[in-house]
Amino acid sequence: MPWAAALFEPKSVAVVGSTSPGKLGYVLIGQLLAGGFRRVSAVGPKGQGALGVPGFRSIGEIPDAPDLVVVASPADSVPSVIEDAGRAGAKVAVVLTAGFSEVGKKAEEQAILEAARRSGIRLVGPNCAGIVNTKARLFPTLETRPPSGDVAFVSQSGALGGAVLSWAEEQGVGFSKFVSYGNGVDLTDVDFLDFLAGDAETKVVALYVETVSNGRAFLDAAAHLAAAKPLVVIKSGRSRSGVRAALSHTGSLAGSDAVYDAALEQCGAIRVAGIEEMFDLCRGFTTLPPVRGRRLVIVTNSGGPGVLAADAADAAGLEMAAPSEALRARLRASPHLSTLGSLANPIDLTVQGTEDGYREALVAALDEADAALAIDVNTPYIDAAPIARGVVAAARATGKPVAACFMAGKTVAEGLPILKEGGVPNFATGERAAAVIAAVARYERARCAVRSAWPTTKTQPEGRRLPWEGDALEPEVLDWLEGEGIPTPKRRLVTSADDAADAVGALGGSVVLKVVAVGISHKTDVGGVILNVETKTAARDAFKRLRSVGGEGFRGVLAAPMVRDGVELLVGLSRDPQFGPVVAVGLGGVYAEVFRDVSLRVAPIDAAEARVMLGDLRGAAILRGARGAAQRDLDAAADLVAGVSRLPFRYADLAELDLNPVFLLEDGLVVGDARAVRRDAAATRAWGGSR
Amino acid sequence: MPWAAALFEPKSVAVVGSTSPGKLGYVLIGQLLAGGFRRVSAVGPKGQGALGVPGFRSIGEIPDAPDLVVVASPADSVPSVIEDAGRAGAKVAVVLTAGFSEVGKKAEEQAILEAARRSGIRLVGPNCAGIVNTKARLFPTLETRPPSGDVAFVSQSGALGGAVLSWAEEQGVGFSKFVSYGNGVDLTDVDFLDFLAGDAETKVVALYVETVSNGRAFLDAAAHLAAAKPLVVIKSGRSRSGVRAALSHTGSLAGSDAVYDAALEQCGAIRVAGIEEMFDLCRGFTTLPPVRGRRLVIVTNSGGPGVLAADAADAAGLEMAAPSEALRARLRASPHLSTLGSLANPIDLTVQGTEDGYREALVAALDEADAALAIDVNTPYIDAAPIARGVVAAARATGKPVAACFMAGKTVAEGLPILKEGGVPNFATGERAAAVIAAVARYERARCAVRSAWPTTKTQPEGRRLPWEGDALEPEVLDWLEGEGIPTPKRRLVTSADDAADAVGALGGSVVLKVVAVGISHKTDVGGVILNVETKTAARDAFKRLRSVGGEGFRGVLAAPMVRDGVELLVGLSRDPQFGPVVAVGLGGVYAEVFRDVSLRVAPIDAAEARVMLGDLRGAAILRGARGAAQRDLDAAADLVAGVSRLPFRYADLAELDLNPVFLLEDGLVVGDARAVRRDAAATRAWGGSR
Repeated sequence: MPWAAALFEPKSVAVVGSTSPGKLGYVLIGQLLAGGFRRVSAVGPKGQGALGVPGFRSIGEIPDAPDLVVVASPADSVPSVIEDAGRAGAKVAVVLTAGFSEVGKKAEEQAILEAARRSGIRLVGPNCAGIVNTKARLFPTLETRPPSGDVAFVSQSGALGGAVLSWAEEQGVGFSKFVSYGNGVDLTDVDFLDFLAGDAETKVVALYVETVSNGRAFLDAAAHLAAAKPLVVIKSGRSRSGVRAALSHTGSLAGSDAVYDAALEQCGAIRVAGIEEMFDLCRGFTTLPPVRGRRLVIVTNSGGPGVLAADAADAAGLEMAAPSEALRARLRASPHLSTLGSLANPIDLTVQGTEDGYREALVAALDEADAALAIDVNTPYIDAAPIARGVVAAARATGKPVAACFMAGKTVAEGLPILKEGGVPNFATGERAAAVIAAVARYERARCAVRSAWPTTKTQPEGRRLPWEGDALEPEVLDWLEGEGIPTPKRRLVTSADDAADAVGALGGSVVLKVVAVGISHKTDVGGVILNVETKTAARDAFKRLRSVGGEGFRGVLAAPMVRDGVELLVGLSRDPQFGPVVAVGLGGVYAEVFRDVSLRVAPIDAAEARVMLGDLRGAAILRGARGAAQRDLDAAADLVAGVSRLPFRYADLAELDLNPVFLLEDGLVVGDARAVRRDAAATRAWGGSR
Repeated sequence: MPWAAALFEPKSVAVVGSTSPGKLGYVLIGQLLAGGFRRVSAVGPKGQGALGVPGFRSIGEIPDAPDLVVVASPADSVPSVIEDAGRAGAKVAVVLTAGFSEVGKKAEEQAILEAARRSGIRLVGPNCAGIVNTKARLFPTLETRPPSGDVAFVSQSGALGGAVLSWAEEQGVGFSKFVSYGNGVDLTDVDFLDFLAGDAETKVVALYVETVSNGRAFLDAAAHLAAAKPLVVIKSGRSRSGVRAALSHTGSLAGSDAVYDAALEQCGAIRVAGIEEMFDLCRGFTTLPPVRGRRLVIVTNSGGPGVLAADAADAAGLEMAAPSEALRARLRASPHLSTLGSLANPIDLTVQGTEDGYREALVAALDEADAALAIDVNTPYIDAAPIARGVVAAARATGKPVAACFMAGKTVAEGLPILKEGGVPNFATGERAAAVIAAVARYERARCAVRSAWPTTKTQPEGRRLPWEGDALEPEVLDWLEGEGIPTPKRRLVTSADDAADAVGALGGSVVLKVVAVGISHKTDVGGVILNVETKTAARDAFKRLRSVGGEGFRGVLAAPMVRDGVELLVGLSRDPQFGPVVAVGLGGVYAEVFRDVSLRVAPIDAAEARVMLGDLRGAAILRGARGAAQRDLDAAADLVAGVSRLPFRYADLAELDLNPVFLLEDGLVVGDARAVRRDAAATRAWGGSR
């Protein structure tokens, strides 16, 4: 990535914009110099320098062409500035200037991109807050210069990016790099994730995004990055009430925030709800060693806060295992732990907890735990410094992850620098510390899991076309699914009352009769499904009723055996505007509608991932045979979900598929009803075959 | 409450304990003097004073007896100190000394209480962190002296209480009073809530509790207080995984954290998860005017943080309504809002947002909203002070609740004092601000709701006894329920195969046969229930099978008509060790077990509250007739739940009752099965009739 070297480690930088004191160009030059970067030139109509930096009228006049150009000149000048910069040999331009697509001026923004393409330069922005590379002491931005550290922060929003930089010192987080890409006309989220995956100076990547630029490219880049280092993502959603409403039927899942949730989890990213949680996680990931299991021990000098943290740990999926008898004996034997209030977990040292007490309790307990949280509820008469030394000593002695919660205010001021120096992250509350430890443990688990990374299966678009014209009728969809190897019921399409009577005899036992009619897709709503037809007479009557329900679009009646004792599932497929094909599985009927118990993935997935989806359902126990019922055929269900997830890659014109109900049996399954919607030709072309 | 005047506004205070420099008595005297309280004497074996305070050998020697005695002398001296204090005329003693029941020394603790009762003095503690009354400049505590304010904080834990006091200044919360009651041998949570309900200097009460002293007295006191001012409660639970396991059957609900959840909601208290949330809510309640509806408008200068806050608002139950066309026109017409980025909600002023812009947008938008959140995502080149002035001006002009989120760090330092001075609370993130506004709105709604306060019905204990001995058999329980006016099925208890055959004929249609046998309470698990018996032959066969299932305890077979198309509920009653009788209702069968969809209340409740319980179920839509099914008889269900909730007050020996399934029909309901457990006589006496 040649643009990356020019962007983050330029030999020299040109600032384009007014250099009159107080103007943007002047402020930017001041920032660059104050940050410690010296190889700067100023470009403006008057050709005057500023703050000792030489001035030029155009980029072409600069004797040694700059690698990086920072543009803060008026919007209408930007295309020509970009063109000049490219022609002069600059590799990247960071365009801070606003007033483009964000205020509806799309053509003007396109003009910048074209100028860049013509002259061979790459762009960051426009309407961005600049970039930072603390290791190169490079601060071409109007924002606060943040402390140096191991976190790279990429922000779509300039303002939010700036706020994060301003907040960083107080939050104890340092940055390796910062990029605000604003309108992202050229370089965007995907490019920066690709670069940061291999950036040795970055241990953790944090991303704030409102919309990803390209769903599938984003997933590829994010999965690649997340395999190497943690990726923490804030994605602001819009109106979760809208999302909840949409979940009521699978066909409307497209574009919902739930798809972002699924996609981010699939690529191994960690989605957080806001900036505080992002800072907490960044601190945890940069300071804690890997958390290699779920067992947490809490050592505290006050019971209550220990229990609050334990509650949070439990809720976050950690295990608060009780110490073994051997460990309890060891703790009791220590001369420094004679005042021990509780030998359970949390281990309560009481207000008598000392440096030696914290150290010994932590070291001993970490023999049986994967991570520890040390809580010091301080008071004016407790000295936090020795307690901090005890905690740091335990972390060093064991090499295991130890976090701290030293409360509160000035009374712990002397302990905090000792923790920081000792590499033990301190959190405002035990609950927040527990949440961070849980997230670090989850990340490690996801990395080590057998579960394959995104995408779980590679599927070449085949570009076939669905074998029907217009709206499909159920028999057509079932025939097609059968051809794709999906289990469909025995069935007969009949077109007379006598044929219906014959069908009941031939299919045997109890039969369901369903109307097949153009224009009727939700058959139950119009009385188009008659269950439990058991005699020829009943079949004739049922046919006549369905004939009249069908009206002008009537094409026949579909007869199939009643399925008994199946657990109802729904399996759905839709296309999300950001991420393309999305597959859903849920418990059918009332479960899906009332409990909204549906699991989603960006397609395609393999059967192993489909098994994970089934396990994610809140009602998963029903499939495993709750209340003494028989276990259901989860392999068959997983094969079906995986198979459905591949269909949109074989059939570019498949828009939606809704299998509901699917009867999941002890052995195998039967698709009870199927609806399919084809994309119109224009959409198929516009979106591309695989999207 | 004479103890309260002596405790919080004593004319004079005696400190008992060593007054050698650095010892507890010495430090306490120093705290009292430094806080500004002068009428102090010192009592110790040497009779020496300290820091200019006169010394005595015993409390009796003090010329003017002190109202309040603060005890920090060794544990074994405490009973005699208390006795002396009472005899000398002191009204209250605060015992900081530890080493009593918290380390297993219950007899020693009891001795203090007896000394107090003998001598007519009330006690706070032992093992407590003292008390504070900032308005009287009274600080008999070893903890940080907190800033003065409108919040009273009551803490069972001394250490946590101390941490909160130390943290208060940084969090911007001031206290009217603080009480740490430690082991609570005499005065305890209930007493302090009673007092604070009427304390004019306290606008909000915060409580940290690990176990309430007496569940029902606590509910009475908390409900009384919450009707007058907000009560924010941190209750540390233990192991929510344990709670989840317990929820799998109603009989085990006792003692669970879920009962605390229900009880706190019933009495109008606001349960929070931790200290940060407590501080946030205290700031919200003390500064915001009442939030009289759910509609929130957000005004921001950066889109992303606005959307994150909107997401949080939505999740917390607020409505992010879009501005009306008239409002949009008004906003567009303002000369100060020409740069408006978005006229939706959030209203995005963009980085160009000014003092006038914030003021005008907020004033206009509050015409259509019940509360506003002003977000300033600041940067080094934005001046936060004028924006703060605009926000404050809007709050003043409208009189409506306005909260702020000014981010971040030093860049907003100049705005924060202006917000504080203007009475606009500022929160670290928009998400936290939204959560506070939602909580303040919920409190107002609960206060104004028609829903009656705890207890929703008064029931005099009647002290009847259940009409059976030993373990009840199903027919006995059903007969008893019928006598209590609860709808039970038509049924026959038969004791021969021929009688079983007759019963099928008499009950008509399809019948269920169930074994009645001593020692078999879970009949399904042992094959003791046979469904769909339709013929006399089948009835005879079934009887024989059930006869052999019943074994030695066999008493007969219960025949009842099969119920079709009922929605299954479970209704349960149990006794919680803290709160006494608890009533539960949930969807029956697999819903309760897999989805754990159960609603709880401390009993008794009335039918209106039972309707609220039914509505609280996640699967409530099933009762209302989801998927085109018929609406169920919610009145009948509510009457049943309310009726069951009153039974333990009529029958002091009723320990548990489990109606599962209850078939809820379109019209009425039928109890399908009933189990009851009686308390043994000892438990009934020990617990009292109403507990």
